[in-house]
Amino acid sequence: MVGKPRNFSAIQEVEVEGHLIDSMILSRIWDKIMDLGGDFEVLEFRVGRKKTDYSYAKMLVKGEDENHLKLILEEIFRLGAIPCKVEEVKYKPAPADKILPEDFYSTTNHPTYVYFKGRWVEVEGLMMDKVVVVDPEKGKAYCKAIGEIKKGDLIVVGEKGIKVKPPERPRESIGIFKFMSSEASSEKPASTIIKQIAQDIYEVKKVGGKIVVVAGPAVIHTGAAESLASMIRMGFVDGLLSGNALAVHDVEAALYGTSLGVSLKEGITLLKGYRNHIAAINEIYKVGSLKKAVETGLIKKGIIYECIKNNIPFVLAGSIRDDGPLPEVITDTIEAQKRYREILKDASMVLMFSTALHSIAVGNMIPSTVRVVCVDINPATVTKLLDRGSMQAVGVVSDIGTFLPILAEELKNLKKLEEFQKV
Amino acid sequence: MVGKPRNFSAIQEVEVEGHLIDSMILSRIWDKIMDLGGDFEVLEFRVGRKKTDYSYAKMLVKGEDENHLKLILEEIFRLGAIPCKVEEVKYKPAPADKILPEDFYSTTNHPTYVYFKGRWVEVEGLMMDKVVVVDPEKGKAYCKAIGEIKKGDLIVVGEKGIKVKPPERPRESIGIFKFMSSEASSEKPASTIIKQIAQDIYEVKKVGGKIVVVAGPAVIHTGAAESLASMIRMGFVDGLLSGNALAVHDVEAALYGTSLGVSLKEGITLLKGYRNHIAAINEIYKVGSLKKAVETGLIKKGIIYECIKNNIPFVLAGSIRDDGPLPEVITDTIEAQKRYREILKDASMVLMFSTALHSIAVGNMIPSTVRVVCVDINPATVTKLLDRGSMQAVGVVSDIGTFLPILAEELKNLKKLEEFQKV
Amino acid sequence: MVGKPRNFSAIQEVEVEGHLIDSMILSRIWDKIMDLGGDFEVLEFRVGRKKTDYSYAKMLVKGEDENHLKLILEEIFRLGAIPCKVEEVKYKPAPADKILPEDFYSTTNHPTYVYFKGRWVEVEGLMMDKVVVVDPEKGKAYCKAIGEIKKGDLIVVGEKGIKVKPPERPRESIGIFKFMSSEASSEKPASTIIKQIAQDIYEVKKVGGKIVVVAGPAVIHTGAAESLASMIRMGFVDGLLSGNALAVHDVEAALYGTSLGVSLKEGITLLKGYRNHIAAINEIYKVGSLKKAVETGLIKKGIIYECIKNNIPFVLAGSIRDDGPLPEVITDTIEAQKRYREILKDASMVLMFSTALHSIAVGNMIPSTVRVVCVDINPATVTKLLDRGSMQAVGVVSDIGTFLPILAEELKNLKKLEEFQKV
Amino acid sequence: MVGKPRNFSAIQEVEVEGHLIDSMILSRIWDKIMDLGGDFEVLEFRVGRKKTDYSYAKMLVKGEDENHLKLILEEIFRLGAIPCKVEEVKYKPAPADKILPEDFYSTTNHPTYVYFKGRWVEVEGLMMDKVVVVDPEKGKAYCKAIGEIKKGDLIVVGEKGIKVKPPERPRESIGIFKFMSSEASSEKPASTIIKQIAQDIYEVKKVGGKIVVVAGPAVIHTGAAESLASMIRMGFVDGLLSGNALAVHDVEAALYGTSLGVSLKEGITLLKGYRNHIAAINEIYKVGSLKKAVETGLIKKGIIYECIKNNIPFVLAGSIRDDGPLPEVITDTIEAQKRYREILKDASMVLMFSTALHSIAVGNMIPSTVRVVCVDINPATVTKLLDRGSMQAVGVVSDIGTFLPILAEELKNLKKLEEFQKV
Repeated sequence: MVGKPRNFSAIQEVEVEGHLIDSMILSRIWDKIMDLGGDFEVLEFRVGRKKTDYSYAKMLVKGEDENHLKLILEEIFRLGAIPCKVEEVKYKPAPADKILPEDFYSTTNHPTYVYFKGRWVEVEGLMMDKVVVVDPEKGKAYCKAIGEIKKGDLIVVGEKGIKVKPPERPRESIGIFKFMSSEASSEKPASTIIKQIAQDIYEVKKVGGKIVVVAGPAVIHTGAAESLASMIRMGFVDGLLSGNALAVHDVEAALYGTSLGVSLKEGITLLKGYRNHIAAINEIYKVGSLKKAVETGLIKKGIIYECIKNNIPFVLAGSIRDDGPLPEVITDTIEAQKRYREILKDASMVLMFSTALHSIAVGNMIPSTVRVVCVDINPATVTKLLDRGSMQAVGVVSDIGTFLPILAEELKNLKKLEEFQKV
Repeated sequence: MVGKPRNFSAIQEVEVEGHLIDSMILSRIWDKIMDLGGDFEVLEFRVGRKKTDYSYAKMLVKGEDENHLKLILEEIFRLGAIPCKVEEVKYKPAPADKILPEDFYSTTNHPTYVYFKGRWVEVEGLMMDKVVVVDPEKGKAYCKAIGEIKKGDLIVVGEKGIKVKPPERPRESIGIFKFMSSEASSEKPASTIIKQIAQDIYEVKKVGGKIVVVAGPAVIHTGAAESLASMIRMGFVDGLLSGNALAVHDVEAALYGTSLGVSLKEGITLLKGYRNHIAAINEIYKVGSLKKAVETGLIKKGIIYECIKNNIPFVLAGSIRDDGPLPEVITDTIEAQKRYREILKDASMVLMFSTALHSIAVGNMIPSTVRVVCVDINPATVTKLLDRGSMQAVGVVSDIGTFLPILAEELKNLKKLEEFQKV
Repeated sequence: MVGKPRNFSAIQEVEVEGHLIDSMILSRIWDKIMDLGGDFEVLEFRVGRKKTDYSYAKMLVKGEDENHLKLILEEIFRLGAIPCKVEEVKYKPAPADKILPEDFYSTTNHPTYVYFKGRWVEVEGLMMDKVVVVDPEKGKAYCKAIGEIKKGDLIVVGEKGIKVKPPERPRESIGIFKFMSSEASSEKPASTIIKQIAQDIYEVKKVGGKIVVVAGPAVIHTGAAESLASMIRMGFVDGLLSGNALAVHDVEAALYGTSLGVSLKEGITLLKGYRNHIAAINEIYKVGSLKKAVETGLIKKGIIYECIKNNIPFVLAGSIRDDGPLPEVITDTIEAQKRYREILKDASMVLMFSTALHSIAVGNMIPSTVRVVCVDINPATVTKLLDRGSMQAVGVVSDIGTFLPILAEELKNLKKLEEFQKV
Repeated sequence: MVGKPRNFSAIQEVEVEGHLIDSMILSRIWDKIMDLGGDFEVLEFRVGRKKTDYSYAKMLVKGEDENHLKLILEEIFRLGAIPCKVEEVKYKPAPADKILPEDFYSTTNHPTYVYFKGRWVEVEGLMMDKVVVVDPEKGKAYCKAIGEIKKGDLIVVGEKGIKVKPPERPRESIGIFKFMSSEASSEKPASTIIKQIAQDIYEVKKVGGKIVVVAGPAVIHTGAAESLASMIRMGFVDGLLSGNALAVHDVEAALYGTSLGVSLKEGITLLKGYRNHIAAINEIYKVGSLKKAVETGLIKKGIIYECIKNNIPFVLAGSIRDDGPLPEVITDTIEAQKRYREILKDASMVLMFSTALHSIAVGNMIPSTVRVVCVDINPATVTKLLDRGSMQAVGVVSDIGTFLPILAEELKNLKKLEEFQKV
């Protein structure tokens, strides 16, 4: 099992544990070493006895010289390997606001730990393509975006003392997610998949999980607003992330029964319908906010109405294409990002409904352990969103206007069944 | 209302009648004349008094010389204009099998008449991009494909004695079709549109109209086979046009509950599922045909089962990508085209479900008076199919796997309502 | 030519002039009247003698009562009709900041005039779905977004004293735009269309027109950055509208030869490439701005480099999905909209390259007289952008990575030819 | 490295060799065993010393009983494992024409061997989802479609004596194919990828490889016919697979300069252009065939012209949507499949240009060792075609009308360079 040492003068022992085999972790590591022109020797290898057991491997990684070895190690550390002899994580102060030290460590979206003051500390608020800041006083480590860095922040550098845990393919069935794959096809049994997603949403809520919905205005245009509203009413949504357009058309639908002037009941453009979305904004401006529009009884239904009535937090991020925008819209995009992250904290599941812009934003803010359901009619959007290394994502190329009514119906049936069983 | 005669030495009186204004017919004719460098003088113009009245216009069309005028006339005749002084249609014999005279008349997909033996004769079996053959003995005119031409067939040539009636925008509401437009958007209120399509299907059947379904295998893959099967069972389908794949996967689903090996109930690829579609073909080969598979009780459900049980004719056209193919598949494509046309004869409505190949074929075989509903997840496919000048087509960019269950449910409700009202 | 007066008790004379026939304007007006249950009588009708002449029509529009008539008039005024007896435009003060009077007039994207103090005044800064504010002191009228309205602003209300000029189909050929249609197909002769777009860009610049480019990061990912950079260098671009991502990846490409870590020269993901876009942001933060990065020689090529070197203004709008963002990015979306509008002022032509977000924003800011070229690989995006009533838009479903190199090459050839002819 | 025997009463030794690790073969096998509730013990494991060396593993596979073990073995045999103790392949005669024995072996698209008469015999003409027929007299094994089976053919059954060699990720760079992945994105550096594909085509030809092009009519519509024609002229194409439409529009372009009536030079629909494709068919019918049209000088350029002039075989398969069809079109789809397969025999590389129908057909006819380049503007088509387990496929979401001119130009440059170097 050993490669004859060619001219490999630099070596280091590394180890890795987890569901090594079925999650392809070990294959990826070995493959990367060989791709980079290095070599390895397997020192120890224990296959997990039962499905739920971890496997463990200890290897000697070999490079032609120290630089070559360092390069190899940096890449395989990102794949889950760690040095056998753990060293303290290295960090340097940021030389100025928003400025990183040269050799800053750039995060993956997998759960990450730093060996800090003699123990493994999990990095809090993990997101992809960010940096890690340590706080020696509290003994904590945080993930921060470059724009948030203050002069003197202690930024993790190099690759030592950092441990990454890539997501593992769940051994036991967890519903729909078990057959997730990178490909997003519209040629799957739609009703069956929706049924399984409903089951999954139901079970996540049953164990107290947090579900965040990211939605675009197509939900309203396609006439699915009431379906999403009913999901909120039934208690399946713990936070809503969107933009100005969803809220404007949701209000337009509540007030005039149209979306961009198209009657949701008849499917035709109404007379003078073209002014409805501006009139909707005007009505909200008059009462002062969406919140007041609900309190004063101006709007009596819809997605935003249900959020406010049921105290479900929502964040509307501003964008360059907004009309208005509505008072609750956060027009500063950096502030909007902060508010998005607050809502996403500790989420177990994110449902992405027909919005590339907000979904990509959210995809960059969540760790790879969050379950993701992404529904869009454009296969390219679904592929882009799934393409993040998560093992717990399911992509559905479908029409949100027919998908959501069926999903809401399934959830309603699960609720009824539950109540029936209680009796 | 007259243009000063520049150097227009060739003139001809033409007339046009119909719902000239709202159907844009007159605009198109005037526009074409001016585009081609000609001129015109309006001699008479009667606007229809009521919505249901026709308008009538008589014009003097002017060209620089006879050739120029001829060119202009040829183009505007295709838009519905006809010469005031009607002349007999001209025709020449085909010099050999499959050979047309030089100046053959190439058909549009609009209802077409030839002035033959002193009277207007409607061209039977009209299709687009074909030729017209007249039969002096029977005084009839037929539309034929070039491949069907026999030596000596009398082929209509030139543009004289031919009258085209472009489709008119229906004045009175006819359900969903009233808001048809060339654009195919996925951002329409889906449930509303489906409800209107259901209403339309229902009403077409109520007045004894013929409805033909063109469907691809995605109907099975997406788990919507039972929805289409129920539409057949309820009597909403008078003919089914498809290919080998739909039938193979329909049988596979009926026998093994899978489509291309994917369990329709669980959405996962079954063990050894990869061999199911070949095994399905094998089972049909054993009993000899799909018909016998139903008679012997081998298959007990599905789209093909319902067709056979309810005596609904179906045609499966062979294609280069077929496995098998099944015994009922017509592997000669010319023969398959003939059989398609037989099914499409006198159809009032065609429903195209997720198949570009067969839908394009059908689109070329039907006149512009047939109502078309086209559903596909790919907007390019929907656009291509709508792009045929019909005023009675509706395109829906949606997921057939969620669209069909909702459509079938709506039709079921309409049926129930009807029975309820009878009581 | 007259409909017998049924029970039409309310009447008004209206007139319309322009290229009525070929632009379908008259058809649309008559059609709308009949759709709404009204009637009309043509009082006078003069067809333009030559192609470049206007036509003129005077009609008596009839409604069942004053309310019915008002409804009809409101709709046809938006289509270009105006009352024969011109009345002063009506306006009311805004009751508070951002609040409109009930019956505010909502703009189209067509050039619009108000009859104000006895003369027709063109509304300045016209955009779609906005309102009109008049200034009695200056005798001027401005188009404003609802968010910009201050208490006391005089907002135009009702439909009187307003004249809309819908775009006309250009009579004489103006290159590519003559065959514009609402449909966006990928099945067009690509090289030919690109050649014609190049010719059009060239001619717009030759007569001193202003060309604004709206571009997304796909321009960089697909390796077309140098093509767009060369268009700026050659003087074909007068303004660039984009977001953070284009600039980040443009800098990443200039510094490291990668885009999102993918080597633009080899097409493969480079080692440690994942950190390049964050490192690129870091480098810019260090020098302070993109401008300084060019001045100090940090970046020596690319789209942003050419903009700065050639004093071409660019605006980068912030969005929820930004990393960083870069110092020049305007994170407040309302401020970003203002800056976009400044760049778009007096633009003759807008080129939209692979960005739905920014293109939709721009589409809402420009009048229908601006020529638009929209290139995207997603047909749904192209359709959405063309669907704005302009007669001078061309949509191309193509790969920006192959489209731009061919376009830049054509423009280079036109430049060379010009220089050759000078000699 | 051993799991404690739980209740596994059935065991079998299996072995596997190849580039086990980097090709994920071993991971897939272990994963499948555990998924199916089995267990395994690694008896021997030799990692290849050098990149070009094979690895070897011997395992004990365990099932709860013989049936369970059989199920596991069947699945892992398809992944490349084989029993250590080789048994003769089993076969049964077909009971009738087109009828398979119950337990027929259904092929993968990977190279396959049967242990027949004491030695491993490679299955000839391998295709996916077909069956294997052995010929005891010649000692050979053939892959056959179910429709070709004759009564008495000896059909391989069960899973014994069969060895599958899944494709391996090439260790050394082989140009573009090294970075192939299952995802098909339009956001890749297009010019770079095209350059690499050109290099690859060039190298395949240099070593005498056979290249087959599969192309749809969009190649003509988008104006890329001359680019493909030049590739044939330069000797880069050894066979062309297509349908009627490509040939019709190729002839139309050669005769009239239009494709479906659209002028390829001006991009506009020509006067009377609508009849050009029927007229093109008529011209071919007159001379009798495409071949004669070239010989008589009727057509002097285009794709078909170059094929005939350069003796490159082409097959045009009939389909339900054909006009005409042309004399060379094979209207019987089973016959067309046979002819396709003849052309594909021993192909090293297949280039699929903008045709889902013919590409899917071809995808089912070639083993996984053939390099595939698939170009289409629809990402769903590219994904579908790549989704076949090959490690040597590259998908490009691009516009064939801009892609092909750039590819042809690159190939021309490589040719020139070659000639220059010879001198």
